[in-house]
Amino acid sequence: MSPLFVHDADRSQRIGLPEAVFCASKTVDQLAAVLNALLAEGSRALLTRLAPEQHAALSDDLRRRLDYDPISRTAFLGPVAPPPGPPRVAVVTGGTGDQRVAEEAARTLAFHGEAVERHYDVGVAGLWRVLARREALARFPALIACAGMEGALFSVLGGLVPGLVVAVPVCSGYGVADGGRAALSSALASCAPGIVVVNIDNGYGAACAALRALRASAGR
Amino acid sequence: MSPLFVHDADRSQRIGLPEAVFCASKTVDQLAAVLNALLAEGSRALLTRLAPEQHAALSDDLRRRLDYDPISRTAFLGPVAPPPGPPRVAVVTGGTGDQRVAEEAARTLAFHGEAVERHYDVGVAGLWRVLARREALARFPALIACAGMEGALFSVLGGLVPGLVVAVPVCSGYGVADGGRAALSSALASCAPGIVVVNIDNGYGAACAALRALRASAGR
Amino acid sequence: MSPLFVHDADRSQRIGLPEAVFCASKTVDQLAAVLNALLAEGSRALLTRLAPEQHAALSDDLRRRLDYDPISRTAFLGPVAPPPGPPRVAVVTGGTGDQRVAEEAARTLAFHGEAVERHYDVGVAGLWRVLARREALARFPALIACAGMEGALFSVLGGLVPGLVVAVPVCSGYGVADGGRAALSSALASCAPGIVVVNIDNGYGAACAALRALRASAGR
Amino acid sequence: MSPLFVHDADRSQRIGLPEAVFCASKTVDQLAAVLNALLAEGSRALLTRLAPEQHAALSDDLRRRLDYDPISRTAFLGPVAPPPGPPRVAVVTGGTGDQRVAEEAARTLAFHGEAVERHYDVGVAGLWRVLARREALARFPALIACAGMEGALFSVLGGLVPGLVVAVPVCSGYGVADGGRAALSSALASCAPGIVVVNIDNGYGAACAALRALRASAGR
Amino acid sequence: MSPLFVHDADRSQRIGLPEAVFCASKTVDQLAAVLNALLAEGSRALLTRLAPEQHAALSDDLRRRLDYDPISRTAFLGPVAPPPGPPRVAVVTGGTGDQRVAEEAARTLAFHGEAVERHYDVGVAGLWRVLARREALARFPALIACAGMEGALFSVLGGLVPGLVVAVPVCSGYGVADGGRAALSSALASCAPGIVVVNIDNGYGAACAALRALRASAGR
Amino acid sequence: MSPLFVHDADRSQRIGLPEAVFCASKTVDQLAAVLNALLAEGSRALLTRLAPEQHAALSDDLRRRLDYDPISRTAFLGPVAPPPGPPRVAVVTGGTGDQRVAEEAARTLAFHGEAVERHYDVGVAGLWRVLARREALARFPALIACAGMEGALFSVLGGLVPGLVVAVPVCSGYGVADGGRAALSSALASCAPGIVVVNIDNGYGAACAALRALRASAGR
Amino acid sequence: MSPLFVHDADRSQRIGLPEAVFCASKTVDQLAAVLNALLAEGSRALLTRLAPEQHAALSDDLRRRLDYDPISRTAFLGPVAPPPGPPRVAVVTGGTGDQRVAEEAARTLAFHGEAVERHYDVGVAGLWRVLARREALARFPALIACAGMEGALFSVLGGLVPGLVVAVPVCSGYGVADGGRAALSSALASCAPGIVVVNIDNGYGAACAALRALRASAGR
Amino acid sequence: MSPLFVHDADRSQRIGLPEAVFCASKTVDQLAAVLNALLAEGSRALLTRLAPEQHAALSDDLRRRLDYDPISRTAFLGPVAPPPGPPRVAVVTGGTGDQRVAEEAARTLAFHGEAVERHYDVGVAGLWRVLARREALARFPALIACAGMEGALFSVLGGLVPGLVVAVPVCSGYGVADGGRAALSSALASCAPGIVVVNIDNGYGAACAALRALRASAGR
Repeated sequence: MSPLFVHDADRSQRIGLPEAVFCASKTVDQLAAVLNALLAEGSRALLTRLAPEQHAALSDDLRRRLDYDPISRTAFLGPVAPPPGPPRVAVVTGGTGDQRVAEEAARTLAFHGEAVERHYDVGVAGLWRVLARREALARFPALIACAGMEGALFSVLGGLVPGLVVAVPVCSGYGVADGGRAALSSALASCAPGIVVVNIDNGYGAACAALRALRASAGR
Repeated sequence: MSPLFVHDADRSQRIGLPEAVFCASKTVDQLAAVLNALLAEGSRALLTRLAPEQHAALSDDLRRRLDYDPISRTAFLGPVAPPPGPPRVAVVTGGTGDQRVAEEAARTLAFHGEAVERHYDVGVAGLWRVLARREALARFPALIACAGMEGALFSVLGGLVPGLVVAVPVCSGYGVADGGRAALSSALASCAPGIVVVNIDNGYGAACAALRALRASAGR
Repeated sequence: MSPLFVHDADRSQRIGLPEAVFCASKTVDQLAAVLNALLAEGSRALLTRLAPEQHAALSDDLRRRLDYDPISRTAFLGPVAPPPGPPRVAVVTGGTGDQRVAEEAARTLAFHGEAVERHYDVGVAGLWRVLARREALARFPALIACAGMEGALFSVLGGLVPGLVVAVPVCSGYGVADGGRAALSSALASCAPGIVVVNIDNGYGAACAALRALRASAGR
Repeated sequence: MSPLFVHDADRSQRIGLPEAVFCASKTVDQLAAVLNALLAEGSRALLTRLAPEQHAALSDDLRRRLDYDPISRTAFLGPVAPPPGPPRVAVVTGGTGDQRVAEEAARTLAFHGEAVERHYDVGVAGLWRVLARREALARFPALIACAGMEGALFSVLGGLVPGLVVAVPVCSGYGVADGGRAALSSALASCAPGIVVVNIDNGYGAACAALRALRASAGR
Repeated sequence: MSPLFVHDADRSQRIGLPEAVFCASKTVDQLAAVLNALLAEGSRALLTRLAPEQHAALSDDLRRRLDYDPISRTAFLGPVAPPPGPPRVAVVTGGTGDQRVAEEAARTLAFHGEAVERHYDVGVAGLWRVLARREALARFPALIACAGMEGALFSVLGGLVPGLVVAVPVCSGYGVADGGRAALSSALASCAPGIVVVNIDNGYGAACAALRALRASAGR
Repeated sequence: MSPLFVHDADRSQRIGLPEAVFCASKTVDQLAAVLNALLAEGSRALLTRLAPEQHAALSDDLRRRLDYDPISRTAFLGPVAPPPGPPRVAVVTGGTGDQRVAEEAARTLAFHGEAVERHYDVGVAGLWRVLARREALARFPALIACAGMEGALFSVLGGLVPGLVVAVPVCSGYGVADGGRAALSSALASCAPGIVVVNIDNGYGAACAALRALRASAGR
Repeated sequence: MSPLFVHDADRSQRIGLPEAVFCASKTVDQLAAVLNALLAEGSRALLTRLAPEQHAALSDDLRRRLDYDPISRTAFLGPVAPPPGPPRVAVVTGGTGDQRVAEEAARTLAFHGEAVERHYDVGVAGLWRVLARREALARFPALIACAGMEGALFSVLGGLVPGLVVAVPVCSGYGVADGGRAALSSALASCAPGIVVVNIDNGYGAACAALRALRASAGR
Repeated sequence: MSPLFVHDADRSQRIGLPEAVFCASKTVDQLAAVLNALLAEGSRALLTRLAPEQHAALSDDLRRRLDYDPISRTAFLGPVAPPPGPPRVAVVTGGTGDQRVAEEAARTLAFHGEAVERHYDVGVAGLWRVLARREALARFPALIACAGMEGALFSVLGGLVPGLVVAVPVCSGYGVADGGRAALSSALASCAPGIVVVNIDNGYGAACAALRALRASAGR
């Protein structure tokens, strides 16, 4: 009577972003049901937090229809066109451990037709790495910064570039950095004006925020 | 030898936002010194968190040069031109207690030449209030939402409009809502995609984020 | 001398609810001992948090006497009569991840002779889903709402219906939503008047609360 | 253009509870504006968290129209009829410090036409006090229990009576009890089945929950 | 040069309690080294938090010298004499999940020559269970109470008996009870005067406290 | 109908400790009512957390009947006999800021007929201070240790003496020590076996615990 | 019998730092007693956290013997010689609000005969400010960095200079920065290797750490 | 285009410490890429948090080039010369569980050419153990103290020796000590002046701090 999955079919029209499928808390049966419903509708979809084990447990047929990336744990259902223009979003990371989150953002943007430029491993302990890229980074209307530990990258970046800086605290590190809480509070308390923050590890949300900013301005 | 106040004079050129003066932790002597330094430079400045008692304790001369608003606790030093066009930012609140934060955002935008449209007191407990404004709100490229208590407004708004939604958790309420923590975690954990968050009560930061989004897009 | 399990045999008479067996922290030997004691008394019982591995490790004989549901992790010992009338409780969820908790509530109500109506996957990001059901939901004297992430569903629901809304924060999500804390504080800080809350994931407790409300009123 | 106070005028029809005015974060000017708006509409209203200093600062005219109680910090605007029948709700406290919260609940119920029976100062350290009232308490369909410190009263009460027990953790005590957090977690983690919880000090919310339970059942 | 294990050989003389070996964070090699050092000295020892896997990984020879109990995860090295008199300590639990902690306390007391009387599964939800034992419990100079969830047992017991009540919060339950924090704050905030508390799950520490109380008083 | 103050008159008989009056959350009217009730009964009573302002606001008549000590904020109602023998409890502090809590313990013991020996200002930063008193301290069956900041005194003391050590974390210090939390977790996590803990600043509770230990042993 | 103040007279000999007097939790009477005891001994002393109100309440005679600085809230009792050489410690701050803590460090060093070089208001939002001083800062064997908000200054500094960087998180800011917790976790989680941290606002402790480093190395 | 690993090649020149490779959040492929890049440059490197499973999964060739220690989970890439002189750093632990962290510090120092003297298992519960070493420990310019549980060792040590004491809270213990938080707050709140703190389990950072202190002083 009450279906488990109620597709928010007009979300795209309402807010410019189609519904994505968050796979982390779904069983394989639930995933298959959702995918089949989307296929029946002929809908494209982005899947996030799809663990390799979940992906491997899907039927061959469903797996064949998915473009899966194990680093970002994302999959595309349906065709994804190449971006129509040059990158409008820079994705920046502090260290190697931030890559999976940065790639979730990059893949989300790719699904929505936006190219990104990657600036990885430019953490603050070696400040010259980010300073050397200042001019390049200052050209972007939107930047997604992913950093764990103490997240000093957010403030440094926010003080160097005029674009919208979306900070994604990353769950890496140990002790007080465990779970990404130190980076989260660092991002929220930043002394650089106008930095905005999404939930820990939420590369998907950061990409959606960048899309909101880009599309809304384009529409004016 | 080491001056107490080192003006970040080229900030405006670097990130499109001039330095603002955060007054909360400054003594009256420190405030006067900062204001005199800015006056000597002929710089305009925005002052935030200027408590009425601090304002009252300034010299008549300094007070005369400030355009002070006690609700938002902001002051303008130097001329502020009227906005050149119609509002590009909507400022939305859940209840009366959110007004002071919303006004800090609105005044910050005014200082930078942006008009806002106010949509106040449209909290979720009376859902019709925000639903009735959906079309109006959906036209804005950027929205600043201020809410305390459980912050459900952020998710409802994020599901209704395509613009960039900057959530400002407000320090109001009691018990688990005390200090704005419930609204903060609500904003960060929102099920609506692409909501971005600033620190509790940080109306100034939300306005700066909106400016980053608007200016960057304009510059392309 | 001191038995490990002291059955609270007259609990049903005292508070209208027989004792349930919380299985999470029990070894298989302890579970078997409790079940044998109940069987020896001829008592019916509801088992909660019975993991599939625990269930599988019970003897064939004990397993045969249990009506086990792996999604809700509940089991019935003894006969369960079909509900005598139409549903008096609605069980509502925000997303797929909330189903296991909602089913724990539904099964608990079934054990006590109450039917439920399920309204699943009506989260706030697609607000039309819950608005479309407003009239249906407004007819119920008691509603159990299960939601993780930011729990905005609780406030939206509480502002739409007159019945008793029991909010069950669900342990799903990541970052600040991890462990269900964001949804819990959201439920407690709700701006909708008269929402009540139970512990994170406590579908069983929410059902007991609904039973208390329904029975007490019936007895007047 | 955007009024500060948007009255949720049909809330009463929607959820059976008229809007109340939460005064804690309002200035005296804001309070006067809200009261005048309500008077202009001819609406009755309940005011909560109205501090004596706020009350004293209102105009004589407004003060004369309010029935103010300084212990519960509530005020009635408009007529309040005597309850039509015997008490259907028991209000129970652990100690003297819980009285102000209990009275907020009692006054809220009175405003909505429900009488209460007070059982005060029956904390668990002197267990005989609550045991002596067990029969009296077991007759109520709804009970509101207010307790600070460790909140053991909630579990003891929940194990003794069949009615709906709404636990209100109270912000009293010191050290780990400071702010009511110990009582809150105690209420949520209670071993007694079916206890429901509202925010710390939220006597108003507890009363609304009781009203939802009583009215919904009455309407069937 | 610096041995890894420096035996605090005169601890027994100093504080009346020989050193115990906390095994949780030790590798099997470290455990073997400690045991061999103690055997070489001819010292008796109590081992706590010895997991079954650790125990199984010891050499046959070492295992043969240990009296191991898997429920309490304790082992005796060397002879343990039967207690010389009747029990002077009561060990009380709220539910089945508290047994492992209670047994750690009981085994620690046995190692030091004290018998205990077990009163298990007398949680507050069925209050008659503890009330029925009030007289028996009131005879003990020291009681060790183990409870998880909300720990209401501590306050109820503390209000019923004159002996020293050592509360041991137990890490059981879920949501806000997770990790034993709710029971811990409940014990510390108790309204019953003179309850003392040890760390979560610290059955060993509770037994040592009882020994300190009993021995010190005996020595006067 | 329901008196605000229900005297737990037989508490003394039940647990060996008469009811005390915790004054912190009481108004002056409530205090006067309680005192008059106790006077009418002819009961002795100990008052704790009686602030100088509260004391000053009582009527002259009531004030005359109280033996008040502003440092410990305690008052005796009724006669207090001198202790019949030499001190059986040592009260130890780390620094000057712990004195008020230590004195609450000392006064509570005095009210119940026990003398104490004070060992103040022997914090661990100057370790010789406590080492010099080791023999004196080792003679006491019960010790009450009051310390703020990091509470290292608890572990040092617990490793030096055989008596029951009741740790009272004190709310002093700043930063992570603010509110006494660092000292509390230090006391609970102590490496010295058998230390027991009461709530932050709870000198009264520590004294009651010492009384329980002393009386219970005496009664055997 | 037990003096309230036990001077740790040989601390200087033991650890190279004389005892300081922490005034925050002392009454004026206690302060006067300590000062008189020190004067009687002919001891020099550093007083920290001496509030202007406390200072003003001392007798004229005591006040005359103190060299008091209201910004750092420190006072010197006894003569302080001018530093024998050039500064060996740099004190760095992010913003105006950090000055009081930086001055506590500077005054502590002055009391112990060390000069400092002040580099104030060089926060990360204007990165050029600290970059411009890199060479100057790199010459110091020890640096004390004081920063509130997100404390990004610690990591930036730690990546630029070879000296010992002692991070002092400052209690300034609001929301998640409130109380200095964001800066504290930032300092502890820093990606720059070898940064060390002291308690929030602990300028005194940072100075003592610098003295330990300088003196120990000098003694080799 | 954007390499995943950007070597901070001149870090050694800038801050006197070459970049180390933190392996915890890296995949085996990422590790191999980093090692090959370092080998191609001919750089020496220290690897930290290299789990045995990670080490085992590397190619034989890479494994052959690493000097791996499974207790400290560190590896040396490239030659490590024996220390040129006697130990200048003492590494002190409270118990067996602290050894892995202490060894991370010792190995980091060895990689940088510093010998250490180990003083292990000298926890405060047996105070004589550390007192017996006071003279030996007082000779060191820098000490690294590793302790879990309540971390009382930090304060005791800080009160006994003049050298720089770097406290490393260790993640051992259970209940309130879980995750090392009790030891961390203990270290930060210490009553012994001038103790400095690094993140929980950060033996590497403590060693870097000692190197900063030693080198900076040597360079003067």
